[in-house]
Amino acid sequence: MFDQAPRHWYAVCRSDEVRRAPVACVLLGEPLVLFRDLENRIGAVLDRCPHRNAPLSQGRVEGGRLVCPYHGWEFDRAGQCQAVPGLCDDGQRRYGSVHSYPSAEQDGLVWVYSDEIALGSPPQIDLLQKPGYVSLMHDFTVEADLVDAVENFLDATHTHFVHAGLVRTQGKRRPVRAIVRHGTDCVEAEYLEESQSGLIARLFGVGITRSIGRFALPSTAQLEYWAGERLKLLITLYFTPQSPSAQRVFAVAAANPSPFPFWLVRLPFAWMLKRVVRQDQRILALQSANLRRFGGPRYASTELDILRPHILRLLDKSRPLPDDMTEKQVTLML
Amino acid sequence: MFDQAPRHWYAVCRSDEVRRAPVACVLLGEPLVLFRDLENRIGAVLDRCPHRNAPLSQGRVEGGRLVCPYHGWEFDRAGQCQAVPGLCDDGQRRYGSVHSYPSAEQDGLVWVYSDEIALGSPPQIDLLQKPGYVSLMHDFTVEADLVDAVENFLDATHTHFVHAGLVRTQGKRRPVRAIVRHGTDCVEAEYLEESQSGLIARLFGVGITRSIGRFALPSTAQLEYWAGERLKLLITLYFTPQSPSAQRVFAVAAANPSPFPFWLVRLPFAWMLKRVVRQDQRILALQSANLRRFGGPRYASTELDILRPHILRLLDKSRPLPDDMTEKQVTLML
Amino acid sequence: MFDQAPRHWYAVCRSDEVRRAPVACVLLGEPLVLFRDLENRIGAVLDRCPHRNAPLSQGRVEGGRLVCPYHGWEFDRAGQCQAVPGLCDDGQRRYGSVHSYPSAEQDGLVWVYSDEIALGSPPQIDLLQKPGYVSLMHDFTVEADLVDAVENFLDATHTHFVHAGLVRTQGKRRPVRAIVRHGTDCVEAEYLEESQSGLIARLFGVGITRSIGRFALPSTAQLEYWAGERLKLLITLYFTPQSPSAQRVFAVAAANPSPFPFWLVRLPFAWMLKRVVRQDQRILALQSANLRRFGGPRYASTELDILRPHILRLLDKSRPLPDDMTEKQVTLML
Repeated sequence: MFDQAPRHWYAVCRSDEVRRAPVACVLLGEPLVLFRDLENRIGAVLDRCPHRNAPLSQGRVEGGRLVCPYHGWEFDRAGQCQAVPGLCDDGQRRYGSVHSYPSAEQDGLVWVYSDEIALGSPPQIDLLQKPGYVSLMHDFTVEADLVDAVENFLDATHTHFVHAGLVRTQGKRRPVRAIVRHGTDCVEAEYLEESQSGLIARLFGVGITRSIGRFALPSTAQLEYWAGERLKLLITLYFTPQSPSAQRVFAVAAANPSPFPFWLVRLPFAWMLKRVVRQDQRILALQSANLRRFGGPRYASTELDILRPHILRLLDKSRPLPDDMTEKQVTLML
Repeated sequence: MFDQAPRHWYAVCRSDEVRRAPVACVLLGEPLVLFRDLENRIGAVLDRCPHRNAPLSQGRVEGGRLVCPYHGWEFDRAGQCQAVPGLCDDGQRRYGSVHSYPSAEQDGLVWVYSDEIALGSPPQIDLLQKPGYVSLMHDFTVEADLVDAVENFLDATHTHFVHAGLVRTQGKRRPVRAIVRHGTDCVEAEYLEESQSGLIARLFGVGITRSIGRFALPSTAQLEYWAGERLKLLITLYFTPQSPSAQRVFAVAAANPSPFPFWLVRLPFAWMLKRVVRQDQRILALQSANLRRFGGPRYASTELDILRPHILRLLDKSRPLPDDMTEKQVTLML
Repeated sequence: MFDQAPRHWYAVCRSDEVRRAPVACVLLGEPLVLFRDLENRIGAVLDRCPHRNAPLSQGRVEGGRLVCPYHGWEFDRAGQCQAVPGLCDDGQRRYGSVHSYPSAEQDGLVWVYSDEIALGSPPQIDLLQKPGYVSLMHDFTVEADLVDAVENFLDATHTHFVHAGLVRTQGKRRPVRAIVRHGTDCVEAEYLEESQSGLIARLFGVGITRSIGRFALPSTAQLEYWAGERLKLLITLYFTPQSPSAQRVFAVAAANPSPFPFWLVRLPFAWMLKRVVRQDQRILALQSANLRRFGGPRYASTELDILRPHILRLLDKSRPLPDDMTEKQVTLML
């Protein structure tokens, strides 16, 4: 998976999860272990001791070094072996090292780069520092391949059924114009009229007139809700492929709920967000189980599936994108 | 499996299971979903929405149409898509359909034909309509291939061990003559003397003098118990292959227990039938597990295994049956 | 596995486990069933009835014969079929037999030879009959291949971490000389200075000055603890490969704990032994799970891994051992 996926920064866990004990995580099929050195910097190395292949994540951290649970070999942040207990000389450095990965912390998340040498920095949500905006984080796992998972989050037409009442309602549809714009590393759909009639819109949507759904490489999805020129709510989902059929998802919501104070809407909003997530986890798990029963997907699409072809195109490295990209307008009943 | 199995009607569930909600079932490896239209007719379609392959059996039925749980696509009894919510035009019919199967209801069961065009009708047990006869139904699953499962039901020699006391007892054997008759689509063994000394015979067997065990294509097994010229008890088992190693079984018993009234024997008979089934489920599961451990069967047969060669012959489409079929008589200690 | 493993006697269960009911066990991937005939001799046959392949271990023993749970076929100690219930003639002997294996009882264990004709006898621990020595037995399963499991038991350098406090302690290391001697069917390491500071040494180690760890073909590991010329404690582990990744282990401890009476140390010693076993089971299971995640082992060794190369050499039948075997001395910090 490492070879096929875009070389990029991926979120692998929340910053506050990495404390004294090492933390296991999986990125693109590779089991990793995270720990902090004495300067509190994150180390990210392969979760396998070079000696007898025990999982280092089951060991402990001592003096900023990761200690194997089996024979106590010690590794620094760069993955270099610094001690082999029992040896009389100090020849420990001969005994190899464990593969390490570039890592960083940003916006409350730990990021790992999917290649030896990192290019650029992890993405940053500017709104999180802006006055008036407050944030909420929720992380979870979905059982689906990356495209099915991202499509589920950005798709409007499932909300009437999977999130009936919470997001939209089947009986209250009206025509909504959507403009699809395709860039070189992202695609977005702008909904020119807002149609959400569910509980979430009633809580947050005072004055919301339009919204945007966006996918950006390598695996980020965003929803923006605008009241005129003010961005009232931005939900960003970082998808981290763990295996071809499981994604870890880090959801960060930046909100400006005025005229309501954030402390008033925080609890009901967090509750609704988690409920929507559980509903999507359930339908994606049902879809995945059915794909396994039938031995793979056989999908038919309509003009309502406005983003999927573009997401597939962006992830397909073998087909360069054309220069003459044009906007496209669609009308949906939402 | 669909291609190799005989084209025939197969029982897939009880009629009373299909009410307001759709019902999932499996026939010959194919996941199906059953539902009722506004005229109460059964629809049987593949359990996979053509759009994003969600299982339709997890959706609901509205206005006689099956509604997908993911995006609300609606399908009629013929599998035709009749609505794609969100589309502005009425072009839904373009977006394909889901494969549908001929279906029917008969004798309290829902039947599906294993091919596009059904030939004939589902089998019918005439006794169920006859005065003096009352019926009992029990359905269950066994972990075995079709031949092992059918052989288990029709075999007399395992009853002394697996159903000791209930059907026969090891200490009370006597010689029993059996005549084996082979037809073009069935094979039967007639036992000219009855040897059952167990609880079931004491409850039902007043005056029973002979019995017949029968296998008929595609996958039906029957036991008849006769008192002179009167059929006192007929147990029919419809085997529905779900996978090569799992069979759903629908057992229908038609009984004339006179001189006892049926209400008197019903409860103890149902209890014994279920107990016999549990004992067979256990031994078949043990056999299946052992076949998996050893990587497949290596069976030795004796002249006591009177029906298995004929069942294998009937199910082998590559070998046409000879014209000169003769009866054969065997004596067993039962 | 039978073909590749050394032809030898293997322990398959404790003698006291085989009473009236048959007992299932697994040797080198082969499912076996053990039972006793009328003279109380052990029979060891393949756990599969030749008729319909039911597991004979789920049957019962009657008159010294093993009776199949499905149709009651009866087998003697040699695996010969002696009865096929239901047959009118006595032609049962025609109907084949089930493969049987040489078996024996020794030192409280049931042994099976991994080939048709047994050579020699099962190993014997002479100390068990010696005055002053008392014994303790503990059997368990570890999830690891044979070499990883044996190495774990004989290795000193993991004890500071996996058995911290019980066997050795990281903070109290000192130099220990070890002499490695390689024979034609065994290899041993003699530790000339004893370094154990844990609870077990405090209980048993009064006056212990040196210890020996040994591996002998096909799969036996031993630890000897000496006080001068007196053997105070001998722990023998018989490893029985069940599958390439699971070993059944029979641990026999023969102890002379004087000046303490055995009844005083028995309970705490048994408790410590079981605790050490649980700690090793855990680390071996973690190692195995990691090997599965990474698709196989990639081990790096140091001069501390003194026995593994010799164990691998002994088990590799394709490479004959050289004649000129020399002793080798290593110093470890233990």
